[in-house]
Amino acid sequence: METLNPRILDVEYAVRGPIVIRAAEIEKQIKGGNHSFPFDRVIRANIGDCHASGNQVPVTYIRQFLAGCTYPPLMDSPDFPSDIKQKVERLLSVCGGKSLGAYTESQGLIAVREDIATYIQERDGYPADTSDIYLCNGASDGIKTVIKLLMNNDATKPSGIMIPVPQYPLYSATLSEYGAHQIGYYLDEDNNWALDIDELERAINAAKDRCTPRGIVIINPGNPTGQVLSRENIENVVRFAHKHRLFILADEVYQENVYLPGSKFFSFKKALMDLGAPFNQMEMASFHSASKGWHGECGSRGGYYELINIDKDVRVQVNKLISASLCSAAWGQAMMGAIINPPKEGEPSYELYKKERLDIVNRLKQKAELVSKLFNSVEGVKCNAVMGAMYAFPRIELPEKVINHAKSKNMAPDAFYCFQLLEKTGICVVPGSGFKQKPGTHHFRTTILPPVDQMADMVEKFRTFHMEFLREWK
Amino acid sequence: METLNPRILDVEYAVRGPIVIRAAEIEKQIKGGNHSFPFDRVIRANIGDCHASGNQVPVTYIRQFLAGCTYPPLMDSPDFPSDIKQKVERLLSVCGGKSLGAYTESQGLIAVREDIATYIQERDGYPADTSDIYLCNGASDGIKTVIKLLMNNDATKPSGIMIPVPQYPLYSATLSEYGAHQIGYYLDEDNNWALDIDELERAINAAKDRCTPRGIVIINPGNPTGQVLSRENIENVVRFAHKHRLFILADEVYQENVYLPGSKFFSFKKALMDLGAPFNQMEMASFHSASKGWHGECGSRGGYYELINIDKDVRVQVNKLISASLCSAAWGQAMMGAIINPPKEGEPSYELYKKERLDIVNRLKQKAELVSKLFNSVEGVKCNAVMGAMYAFPRIELPEKVINHAKSKNMAPDAFYCFQLLEKTGICVVPGSGFKQKPGTHHFRTTILPPVDQMADMVEKFRTFHMEFLREWK
Repeated sequence: METLNPRILDVEYAVRGPIVIRAAEIEKQIKGGNHSFPFDRVIRANIGDCHASGNQVPVTYIRQFLAGCTYPPLMDSPDFPSDIKQKVERLLSVCGGKSLGAYTESQGLIAVREDIATYIQERDGYPADTSDIYLCNGASDGIKTVIKLLMNNDATKPSGIMIPVPQYPLYSATLSEYGAHQIGYYLDEDNNWALDIDELERAINAAKDRCTPRGIVIINPGNPTGQVLSRENIENVVRFAHKHRLFILADEVYQENVYLPGSKFFSFKKALMDLGAPFNQMEMASFHSASKGWHGECGSRGGYYELINIDKDVRVQVNKLISASLCSAAWGQAMMGAIINPPKEGEPSYELYKKERLDIVNRLKQKAELVSKLFNSVEGVKCNAVMGAMYAFPRIELPEKVINHAKSKNMAPDAFYCFQLLEKTGICVVPGSGFKQKPGTHHFRTTILPPVDQMADMVEKFRTFHMEFLREWK
Repeated sequence: METLNPRILDVEYAVRGPIVIRAAEIEKQIKGGNHSFPFDRVIRANIGDCHASGNQVPVTYIRQFLAGCTYPPLMDSPDFPSDIKQKVERLLSVCGGKSLGAYTESQGLIAVREDIATYIQERDGYPADTSDIYLCNGASDGIKTVIKLLMNNDATKPSGIMIPVPQYPLYSATLSEYGAHQIGYYLDEDNNWALDIDELERAINAAKDRCTPRGIVIINPGNPTGQVLSRENIENVVRFAHKHRLFILADEVYQENVYLPGSKFFSFKKALMDLGAPFNQMEMASFHSASKGWHGECGSRGGYYELINIDKDVRVQVNKLISASLCSAAWGQAMMGAIINPPKEGEPSYELYKKERLDIVNRLKQKAELVSKLFNSVEGVKCNAVMGAMYAFPRIELPEKVINHAKSKNMAPDAFYCFQLLEKTGICVVPGSGFKQKPGTHHFRTTILPPVDQMADMVEKFRTFHMEFLREWK
């Protein structure tokens, strides 16, 4: 331990932290025949993992495409849809030896990058260049690469990156690993987690003595907070970033996950371009992932980022850096390609695809609405509307006695609460402190992924637990 | 550029460096109808990419397994081999929602880790523990993680890692990125790239003022050098590492690629265990990959490492660190699983598997022998035997005039040579300087992957070029 890289000690990642490790232990014990728990199964609401939720099967079109890429003789079957066959052949035609088993270009297969460019152009109304697009092993991999570029620490002043609070813990973990300074800006919980520009100014000014601010992360739709930023809000963030010469990291992995009627996703790229000069020359990266959306192919670790307005010498360096890991997984690239370029009306695989999509999307919408309603029905719990993404981040009022007790055990009060919740009900959620939160407030993050009936059941179990907990610790 | 992470400027990765970028440009121009080159296609001998070599198709068993995991309804066909079906079902039974689309455990799917443990036990005769095994996105990803653990730089003394010279450039690139010190030890070219313990002592002593040595990398079979270390040699390296308290990083990704009659692969783990106490308590990591072997599934980015004798508190930190990237790609894990646990005699898919394996392995053996013979037949070229791996690393004598000319252009002399070779013949190889080499010597790395007829043709083209080059620069 005394020679271990000391920065690793500072890394924290609550989404797979001690509570989740304990949940896995309990699951193993139950599977092994231990009936001593006051529940018969663990409800996994800790991670945005659609397929694992037991509520969602993979999309036929996506898996047929990937199976065809994997083992092309399959396509000789007359049952194999002709549109998918064409797509497979196009993809394999740009692979070395027409095999996904060859290394790809370091930026990713050109056919996939072409499809991503088309998707972005259709989304924003502005062209995208395939040489700006980088496939990666999940958005996490891309985010770590881009943050790495911005690290220019010196002995007296590390690089600083602005991150929302609450945030997704990949950011705090990565900044710890790189020895960078986290400049937290608070989202406004009383205003449905809105992003306030005055708060950005406060945060950057407070941090300037301790670091050199280099970038700002925005997660939109929000994780763990589920808000969807308005176009005006995004434009003000762009102006702020321009004023302070910050590189924009737009974490837009939930761009397809918008539920609240009237809410709409606007990309940071579109905001930059709409604003015109000088904003449309700002450097930024936008991240997307195969793991989220409604298809939820997390295990593929497919993802990409678009790097916009990067200096040409810097681009040479980026391309060199990523080439040292050769390329991202070709299967993940193929997955990202399948997701970004779905069947079109009239194509043989369209009708089934449309039906499967509607089923999943409707369920997600229903659950997004249900979850905040259910939690708000519990005394002492306040839950903002889930406008997008896959999570609710309810606030819980904890008695002073709990807070003191947890502190005496060197635990965050909400971590103590979540451990108790797990041990008594089998519900596994992530403590708000793992995402950071305003001092003195307490939360947890739950996904909206369990099936509707399980979710109602989960909230009832939660209600009983919460009431007893408050009684016990009053 | 002035705010870019300065360590990235130091990163170099020749396997995808300027010559390879130029080769891709030429290929594009030829494809676009440009006939001004004195050749009609580029011969890609720069990278160990079996499928892209145009000489090798994927193994049926591996791809059927992966297609079944991807799209399980395929297995309803009576043509789907029953042994593969059983394997698919076993793998999916440990996936969330029985889908490869779920995140896996951060260390990787337990079924794959069980198969890897069995493979290691059968290889070494010592048990392997599934909790010591970590799946990763290609060996590169695992190597970077383990080196990260060893980074304990302070302002005056960075961590130092011993690497062979010549080395695989992932190591120098990673150490540059992490700000660590490279302690190069020379392999003995005159003695078929043997690893000399006196040279290890010289290297570590020479570096002790500049860094704190923390680990030693050994690549066996060697890349780019193709040697296979003897058991005695390995044991002496273990003793050396023990004396200097170095963490052993055993890059054993070519463990299935041994060609020379009489050569045999011994793992570092087996050496540690055979030596008994205190050596069998040393910390080490061994890396393996789905990309190499004879099946060459590079695009999957499947890989694993076994971490042996790690302190239990350090293990908690490792597991936390990798959890922040969630997990490696499930398809790459499945690929690694397929490779490590092939069909057994008597199983339905065995006969075809055996035939395909023999075909490929025999061709590789044939080419390994052929390539050194061919290069040694060229005047001024000396090439050691290719005992294993996928490469030859011939030495070329360059005239003083070339060396001075290259230096005046701020180029390594062998890089200048390889650029000329590419422009005149279309042969794309990697300059030896990209792997480092003894000062004053010049080499290039070529793979043994092109088809036999192409390889003979390639060496003839090379011979003509080389003779003309020497005449021109005498």
